[in-house]
Amino acid sequence: MNFFSSLSFLTDFHLLATAENSEAESGSLVLAGVLLSLVIIHFASKLGGEICSRINLPPVLGELVGGVLVGVSAFKLLVFPEAGCTAEDSLIITFLQSTAGLTTEASSNIFAAQSEVISLLSELGVIILLFEIGLESDLKELIRVGPLAAIVAVVGVIAPFATGTAGLVYLFGVPVIPAVFAGAALTATSIGITAKVLAELGQLSSKEGQIIIGAAVLDDVLGIVVLAVVASLVKTGEIQITNVIFLIVSAGAFLIGSIVIGRFISPYFVGLVNEMKTRGQVLLTALIFAFAISYIATAIQLEAILGAFAAGLVLAETEKRKELEEQVIPLADFLVPIFFVCVGAKTDVSVLNPTVPSNREGLIIATFLIVVAILGKVITGFTVFGQANLNKLAIGVGMIPRGEVGLVFAGVGSASGALSEATEAAIIMMVIVTTFVAPPLLRLVFKEPETTLQPVTSSSLEGASTEPLKEDS
Amino acid sequence: MNFFSSLSFLTDFHLLATAENSEAESGSLVLAGVLLSLVIIHFASKLGGEICSRINLPPVLGELVGGVLVGVSAFKLLVFPEAGCTAEDSLIITFLQSTAGLTTEASSNIFAAQSEVISLLSELGVIILLFEIGLESDLKELIRVGPLAAIVAVVGVIAPFATGTAGLVYLFGVPVIPAVFAGAALTATSIGITAKVLAELGQLSSKEGQIIIGAAVLDDVLGIVVLAVVASLVKTGEIQITNVIFLIVSAGAFLIGSIVIGRFISPYFVGLVNEMKTRGQVLLTALIFAFAISYIATAIQLEAILGAFAAGLVLAETEKRKELEEQVIPLADFLVPIFFVCVGAKTDVSVLNPTVPSNREGLIIATFLIVVAILGKVITGFTVFGQANLNKLAIGVGMIPRGEVGLVFAGVGSASGALSEATEAAIIMMVIVTTFVAPPLLRLVFKEPETTLQPVTSSSLEGASTEPLKEDS
Repeated sequence: MNFFSSLSFLTDFHLLATAENSEAESGSLVLAGVLLSLVIIHFASKLGGEICSRINLPPVLGELVGGVLVGVSAFKLLVFPEAGCTAEDSLIITFLQSTAGLTTEASSNIFAAQSEVISLLSELGVIILLFEIGLESDLKELIRVGPLAAIVAVVGVIAPFATGTAGLVYLFGVPVIPAVFAGAALTATSIGITAKVLAELGQLSSKEGQIIIGAAVLDDVLGIVVLAVVASLVKTGEIQITNVIFLIVSAGAFLIGSIVIGRFISPYFVGLVNEMKTRGQVLLTALIFAFAISYIATAIQLEAILGAFAAGLVLAETEKRKELEEQVIPLADFLVPIFFVCVGAKTDVSVLNPTVPSNREGLIIATFLIVVAILGKVITGFTVFGQANLNKLAIGVGMIPRGEVGLVFAGVGSASGALSEATEAAIIMMVIVTTFVAPPLLRLVFKEPETTLQPVTSSSLEGASTEPLKEDS
Repeated sequence: MNFFSSLSFLTDFHLLATAENSEAESGSLVLAGVLLSLVIIHFASKLGGEICSRINLPPVLGELVGGVLVGVSAFKLLVFPEAGCTAEDSLIITFLQSTAGLTTEASSNIFAAQSEVISLLSELGVIILLFEIGLESDLKELIRVGPLAAIVAVVGVIAPFATGTAGLVYLFGVPVIPAVFAGAALTATSIGITAKVLAELGQLSSKEGQIIIGAAVLDDVLGIVVLAVVASLVKTGEIQITNVIFLIVSAGAFLIGSIVIGRFISPYFVGLVNEMKTRGQVLLTALIFAFAISYIATAIQLEAILGAFAAGLVLAETEKRKELEEQVIPLADFLVPIFFVCVGAKTDVSVLNPTVPSNREGLIIATFLIVVAILGKVITGFTVFGQANLNKLAIGVGMIPRGEVGLVFAGVGSASGALSEATEAAIIMMVIVTTFVAPPLLRLVFKEPETTLQPVTSSSLEGASTEPLKEDS
């Protein structure tokens, strides 16, 4: 009979070196590690965000840079096993050893558990971010701009892929397979970073903003398809057509289905919530819905964030939108910075260092990739036809950041063994530069906002919303 | 060179069975498991809470019962490795296998990671709960009732410990060491459960409420000391006086120190927050403070929740209290139910089944322990002297639930090998009964609220706050 369901449960309850209690002790140290990580993450995110907002840069850039500073590239407070780091590399683990009685033997387990928890919190962060973006988006407007967004997305995949792959093969003599991988990495768009900057600028509900969001969502779907195609090409030398068709059909069915079914369900959501008497009924009922759809998205091989975005879109149509938005904000404030700081912390910017000889070949290829990456997306804005008053440059710039999606491509390529070190490094550099350059560029091209369609609903997401106004006064 | 910091990072980005991608795939499945767990947890908590609030029972009881239903005792959706469960026992894992392509080989890793993340979210839940309780508490009132709370806490430790241990030895012939363990388990008080019920009743800021909270906090400290004493007694046959003194001194220094230093720092908190321009400045600055203090508490072998409570108390003194309370609510609504559902899910109520012969001896001992557990705490209320208008019964009843703290005692006792199966089961039964009986009892004894000192500040924490009023009308 084992009734002891709770040994590591109230695990913060630990003892002075009683061997019997090692399970509880280790749980307690995981909690200590997570608490310390959260202090570091939120401190870095607030410090970076505040500095950036003072020098008129988007706060999210500060969160990314704050992440780089605490991460694998600089202070190594927050490092992750996926980057090849071990417990010895983590300053948090060293700190736990010197302050909380962590033993060297237990370190690697604690490090693994703490990294797992922080990674998952960061994934919940981007899920909540996309849910919030969905809530702030206007489904009707998205459908209206849908065809334009589709053109932007498709051109934004084909143009950089074709130019990048061909250029690498013909200009740099890179073999076809790694060139295809690098080309595929060029197709990605980080919806998280772009959406956050748009929200900070109060441009999320503008027509440009909605085209960018719509195109970025479609790009996410296209990215999954491209990745599947490239990966199967590398693995088997041919494209598994059935997989590709399955992905495209399931993605389409999912996006349309969740919105259609969601709109059918949403009146019941309002009715149910109105009947409920316990605290947090609006937020939690909405989150149950959002997490369930996100689960379905993950189960059918799509991204969880697509599900969260669809859930937000559907619930934005209900009369509870305002209340829900207000309640999601503190949760987003807590979870979303974990995502951005982790993106920064996981990025190894040492590949950018030209004094390391082995970086130089990569730097040359990277320069080419960066030019293709930026131009290949910037031109997408100008494919939008028949729209006189549109900031077309802004649309293209909005598609630039590759962010975490680009890193996933690089990671899959690396794991496949198809990439040379220089090509690998070049892809990482391209991802870093496009990610960090996009937020200030976006602010620049939106400098003189022509129209802000729904400033009220978008204002709640704005980080330094009052800043541009302050400047003018 | 390993730059691939992000393989499992945007891990929801997974592929159709590409072997290269197994790390990303596994991360994606952990996310899927966590999303599913959260859907189940929040659904169980809302369903249980709503049913209880309709039949005039505290919603938190519903969350606990909801947890029991989804947990190890019933549907086994949410089970934990600490309870001896494996991936095969978890219906979530089975569901992932049939819907999300989880392989049998990968199941145990996914199960371990998902359990780790959910356990940690539940610990963050109780930390946020105690932070919120601290925010709702009144430091001056707590200091005023301090001596009364101290008497309640000390009597509430000595009375059940002495009666329980002596009774087991003389009435039931239990050997001394297991009897001391059972006696020690009787001393615990679950501050989380009591505080939540008080908040739901709008009694958190009443004099009785503040005495209970004060006594429960002191009881937590005493509990750690008692556990350390008992554990060292079992291990070495003697009491390690230095450890005990270290614990008492560090606990005292921590509680007093964090409040004194916190009050010194808090004006700077307000100044800093007023200077900040990015979103979530009040909440995040407060959480950085709370998590840092919680970390210190864990590092010096205390509980993290004591740190969170102290941080809440200090920040409640600042002018940002109201704003902070409002922003903490959605975060608490999301995290706190995870704690209560997990408490329920981890409790194996099958020990209560009298048709199983091996349970019967335990049931007899348990009956004795339950009587001692309830009476030993109820009398504490009547030790409060010189207070005419006080609901003394309510104070005693407020100290009854053993909750997670009692389970930790049982777990440590089990791990030490000192307990017989019957004694072990009896302790678990005592914990279950006191935990589940306390919320309705508390509501009963508070039925006719005599005075509610600060109904406004306490109302935000109330779950079914309007219910008693509705009844009267």
